[in-house]
Formats: sequence, C-alpha cells, structure tokens
Amino acid sequence: MATITKVSPLAPAAFPDLPVIDGVTFATMAAGVKYQGRTDVMLALLAPGTTVAGVFTKSSTRAAPVLDCQAKLGGPSDGAAAILVNSGNANAFTGKGGVAAVEAITAAVAQTCGVEQGRVFTSSTGVIGEPLPAERITAVLDRLHQDQNPDQIEAAAQAIMTTDTFPKGAMALVEIDGKTVSIAGIAKGSGMIAPNMATMLVYIFTDAVASQNALQAMVTRHADRTFNSITVDSDTSTSDTLLVAATGASGVSVDGNAAFEAALHGVMQNLAHQVVKDGEGATKFVEINVTGATTNADAKTHAMAIANSPLIKTAIAGEDPNWGRVVMAVGKSGAPADRDLLSIRFGDIEVATKGFVSPGYAEADAAAHMKGTDIRIGVDLGMGTGASTVWTCDLTHGYIEINADYRS
Amino acid sequence: MATITKVSPLAPAAFPDLPVIDGVTFATMAAGVKYQGRTDVMLALLAPGTTVAGVFTKSSTRAAPVLDCQAKLGGPSDGAAAILVNSGNANAFTGKGGVAAVEAITAAVAQTCGVEQGRVFTSSTGVIGEPLPAERITAVLDRLHQDQNPDQIEAAAQAIMTTDTFPKGAMALVEIDGKTVSIAGIAKGSGMIAPNMATMLVYIFTDAVASQNALQAMVTRHADRTFNSITVDSDTSTSDTLLVAATGASGVSVDGNAAFEAALHGVMQNLAHQVVKDGEGATKFVEINVTGATTNADAKTHAMAIANSPLIKTAIAGEDPNWGRVVMAVGKSGAPADRDLLSIRFGDIEVATKGFVSPGYAEADAAAHMKGTDIRIGVDLGMGTGASTVWTCDLTHGYIEINADYRS
Repeated sequence: MATITKVSPLAPAAFPDLPVIDGVTFATMAAGVKYQGRTDVMLALLAPGTTVAGVFTKSSTRAAPVLDCQAKLGGPSDGAAAILVNSGNANAFTGKGGVAAVEAITAAVAQTCGVEQGRVFTSSTGVIGEPLPAERITAVLDRLHQDQNPDQIEAAAQAIMTTDTFPKGAMALVEIDGKTVSIAGIAKGSGMIAPNMATMLVYIFTDAVASQNALQAMVTRHADRTFNSITVDSDTSTSDTLLVAATGASGVSVDGNAAFEAALHGVMQNLAHQVVKDGEGATKFVEINVTGATTNADAKTHAMAIANSPLIKTAIAGEDPNWGRVVMAVGKSGAPADRDLLSIRFGDIEVATKGFVSPGYAEADAAAHMKGTDIRIGVDLGMGTGASTVWTCDLTHGYIEINADYRS
Repeated sequence: MATITKVSPLAPAAFPDLPVIDGVTFATMAAGVKYQGRTDVMLALLAPGTTVAGVFTKSSTRAAPVLDCQAKLGGPSDGAAAILVNSGNANAFTGKGGVAAVEAITAAVAQTCGVEQGRVFTSSTGVIGEPLPAERITAVLDRLHQDQNPDQIEAAAQAIMTTDTFPKGAMALVEIDGKTVSIAGIAKGSGMIAPNMATMLVYIFTDAVASQNALQAMVTRHADRTFNSITVDSDTSTSDTLLVAATGASGVSVDGNAAFEAALHGVMQNLAHQVVKDGEGATKFVEINVTGATTNADAKTHAMAIANSPLIKTAIAGEDPNWGRVVMAVGKSGAPADRDLLSIRFGDIEVATKGFVSPGYAEADAAAHMKGTDIRIGVDLGMGTGASTVWTCDLTHGYIEINADYRS
C-alpha cells in the first residue's frame, strides 16, 4: 500500500462545523476490515419517515452493495433506515460471495437496530477482488448501535476515508417560512492504493420534509452539474455512491422549493470540489468553462475532453498557458466545433479569438495566471447557447508516484 | 522547447534497409522553418500515373494542409504528383493565413516540379497557432527539385521528425505472379514540444499498380486496425495524416490481391508500433487483446478504455499486475459487459475467470510478466465473438517531464 502522508496543498484549513441534523445519529468503529489502528466502519441511523434518494456509478462492473442500494431505493419508505459504510475492501468483483456478504450485513443491521432490511443501505470502498470479511463488521454492530450520537458526523467522514488526505464535509442552512432547514454532508475520494481505484462516496443529510420522488429528481438533476462534472483522471469507480436522506424533523416541506434546491446544490458542489482538491498529486484546482456550444450536452463533451486531456493537465502542472492543446482537445472531443469561431481564455486573458491568436495577446499575462492555485480555462465555441462547467486538477509526478507504486 | 536527448528504450536497433521504390524520389533541406542545424523539409516526387490514397485526423479543428489533402484526394489522378512535408510549424489554428500558406507552397511546388497543383499534397507538424513562414519553404524548392534521389528515404524520415527520438521506417516485399512488388514506409510521432502535440505523419510508397478506389478502400480498412488502434495518451492531433502512393512501376496489379494487402497491413502495423514505442516517456510496449465481446466495435471500445486508463498505464509503469483496474476500465467503457462472465489474463497467466479471481492464481507469476518490456493484457467478455487488439505504452515520470516542461 502506498504511503500517503502529506495532506493535499489544496485542502481546506479545517473540517467545517457541521450542524446536527435532527433524526440522524452516527457511530464509528475500528473493525479491522483491512486497516489497523483506525476506524473503518460507520453506521448512520435515520428516524422513521426519512426519505432516501441516490445516484450511483454507471459502471457495468459495479459492486454488490451498489446493486443492492439501487434495488432498495424503489422499496418501502416509511420506517427507520440505516446507512452502513466500510472502508478497506470494496466488495467488488467478488461474485456470489459478495452478494452474500451484503445480505449478511444488511440482515444483521436490520436485526440489531430494528430497521427493515429493505431500508438498510451499504457501501464498501477499498481493495477489489478480495472477499469482504462480513463477520468483522457484524461483530461490531452492537457497539455501533449503542454508541449512536447525533454529533459524530466528522468521525463518520474519517471512517469512510481510504487514501484521502483529509476528511470532507460541507453544510448549508436555509430559512423557509421563518424556520431553519439544515443540510450536512460528508464525502470521500480520490486518493487510491493499488489495487484500488478512486471511489467517491457521498452522504448528505437534511431535516427537510421531502417526498422520495421530489428528492430523487432534485438529486439527479444536481448530481449532473456537481459530482458528474468533476474528473481527476477519467477513470470511473465500480462503487461510486451518493445518498441523500431527508428526515423531515424540521417539519418544513421542500418539494419544489428553490431556496432548498440551491442550498443542496451548494453542498453537493462544495463536496465535489473537495474531492477534486484531494486528487492524487493535485497542485492546481482547475475550472473549465465552455460556452457557445450547440447544446449543453455538447458543451460538457468539450469541457470533459479538455479536463481529461493528459497534455492539458501536464501543461497546467508546468504552469504553461498552452492553448494549442485546448484547440486539440476541442477538436478531438467529437462534439461540433468550428475552428474559425473558437475563442479561448486563460483566467480573464483572451488568448485566442475566433480561430486565431488574439491581437495584443502577451504570453507573460497568461503565464502569470497559470502560477496561481486556481486555474480557469474558458472556451467559447461561437455556435449557440450551450454551456457547461467542469472541474479537474493537474497531472503531476505525484500522480505517477501514488499510482505506479508496486504493492510490496 | 523540451530537450529530449535520450532515444526511447523501446526503439529498434537501427533504421531498416528500405527498398528503393521505382517511381519515387526524395530530397530534404534545412529550411530553418523553426529548428536550426537540422533538415526540416522533405519533398517526394511521384511518377506520372501514381495513385494516392489517404486517411486523416477526424479532429474538427484540423489544420489547413489536412483539409487541402482531403479535398485533393478526389481530384485528378493521372499526372505526376508530389508530397511536401515540413516540421517545426503545424500551420494549425492559423486562420486564412494558413490557407494562403498552403496555396503558396503547393503552387510553387507545382511550378518548380511541373506537377499539377491538384496533385501536390502537403503536411505540416510542429508549433500550433504561429503563422507558417511559407517563403522559407518556397525558397529551397529549386534545391529540393534538383537534389531528387531515389535512395533518400531515410533522410526523409529524419526531416519530418519533431521530438521523435528515432526515425521510423518499415518495408515488405511481396512475390506476385513471379514478380516482386516493394513497399517502403516512413512515419513520425509522438514526442512533443510545448505548445505542440503528438502529430502522427505516415507516408508509404509502393511500385504496385493500384486503382485509386481499391487502394483507398484497402488503406481505410487497415488504418482502423493499425494507426487507429494505437494510443499514447488519448489525445488526438489536428494534423494526423497517412498517405499511400502506388507508382505502378512494377507493372503488377494488386487490386483485390490478398498477399499485397497482408504485406501493406504488416508495414502499417510495424510503423504504428514504432510510434507507440516512441511514446513520451514509454518504458513498456503494451498489447491489449479483447475477445468475446458482442461486436468488434464493442471490443475496441473496451480495449481503448483499458489502453487509455491512466490508472492502468501507471500500474504498468510500476510493474503491478493490477487487474482490479482492468475490471474498472471495462466497467466504465460504456460498451456491454457482464461482471460475472469477465476473464482477465496478464501475459499467459489467467488472473480472473468469469467474475472471480482464478483458482490457483499467484500474483508472483503475473508480477514476473510485468517486469518484461512487452506486456500483454487479455480480456474475454464471454458474451460473443467480437474481438479487437490495440497497442499503447505505460505512463511514467518521463511523460510528465516532457509535457509539463515550461517553455523558456
């Protein structure tokens, strides 16, 4: 296992102060799934009536817990609910044994905590292809049940880390009809250990009252513009999971409420940015903003082609305002583009205008922007009104060091 | 400009002995387009009656010379023809000035060499976004015309290099009806200099008699399985060009001839492999073989997802038989896959069988294979008969060094 001791230079100064969410409690344990000397299981219990929405990896080789969660989202939605997450083992590519492990864990949580098994959601993150030792997890369930505490969300964020260099949390408070609705979320991703991959797990809790249908629609809509608009290395995990749970304890209904939706979007975007800022070897946080495309989907295709280009990511690492590579990425993306309408900005500096280097462009200006930590690349296609913003990080020696490290 | 002094460890021992192709002559010059102290222009003249076929980049921001070549392939095909290539400047993203530069050069070649302008094909490779100084090229045309020599193909291979660490050549001789048909080809790619990109240029010459239609169909068919089946970093140049010229001097017709087609395929594959072996920072040559897919196209989608995965490429650099990352790449590719039918091989070692680690798999065996220079990864999807083979190289610190280097 690669030893990653240094916290990302892009990490926030501290874990934020997250509000307690009425109707949610947490506990964590060191179950020894794989790691020694640290917590590796977290159990969150959700009050009766909590609605749960989710978005999952589209991988065709997705792990057993993901398939189980997806099946359960359409199931019963009245009683209490539980979310159990382990780190250290992904329970992926583990065949029928993997399915049996999920069955054993969810059955044990249901019995211990008095929750319907159809309302027990699990995630696993860590090594692929090794059987998950479910008994190590079920052995600590009594303690996880007894230790439940509403104020342990930071501990939960720590227990789900694999090679993350910092725990990730974000929050929002929304005033609706004179009452306060709270949102608190945690995430893990994107350090990795051979033979793992950058799994992203996200759990967001709110005391809002939300119908499952409305919450699911909202989460799906905003996942597309947050978690599905980030990329570290274009690789997709078999375990990516986002769950949003609304306990209803505030008594404030948010179905169709724009202020709540904006606040939820903010929490999702904040967590998504933190995942990028913990990208393997990242030294720069990069925003790619594409406008003027024929459609929003085309804009995103171009933006992702730029964000995933190794040539662009290495140029950013080298603080090189290499706009020729941006032309290349737009050209290869497969979405419509017209070379002679294309304009490119680095930060606020107009580099190329309608297919030609901008008059008065001085490379020194763009180079100055590239020396910062927050890099912005803007592309206008000059064709329509489609737009998209995505976020990524640079590609550095650190990425190679972390990922080429041979398991000893 | 990054200084690349070391020849790739995967380079062949020497440039091959290429046969003289009757009907083709070459000359090279140091025109000072950008580089100093080396040749940077090559002119090949082709005898009257030569048929020319081509395949080009699909980039929507492709360069002016590419657009010009594409337009000319459907044009007149009787008289003499010419191919002029410069290195140092790509004449890409150069607007109307770029089109004018192609017009000026092709008109000058036509006049100097007595060739129809519609039969003058050009390629440019090097810096993007800088006006091509066409006058430096037209200034040396008289000398290029006078110096024509059938035995200068190696010099031509050298003149078209940018940051290639070795010149690339390949050949084949085919016996047809008691006569010998010769094929000789040269290529450049894939070192790069900021703000350049890995352009691939390929020129193949044969003395076969071929109709334009039959030659074009053959070249298109085999480009898909050779040059379009390699990837260094998933980035696509605005200038990629493959031209195949058949002079007819042997008097042997090869339309529909399987032996000729196989020989041409061999030359194309050999050159494609050499481009991969000169990949930036490459220390391993990697063959990805996907079988059992629903269609050949699906197999290629999976193979390319594996070949382009930064996690797999860094694992190969680290000599790590990280099959979990292969599961991940198959899962994310977007083509159909069933986790429980998936089998994976590293070299001849069965690592995973039908969705589970193979019985008796010992990681030490796979690790031994990874220590070699030629790495083979096999994936069987267990679903159908679709198959595809693609080639790539590993992702190393050398890639970062070459591409993150700031222009000074």
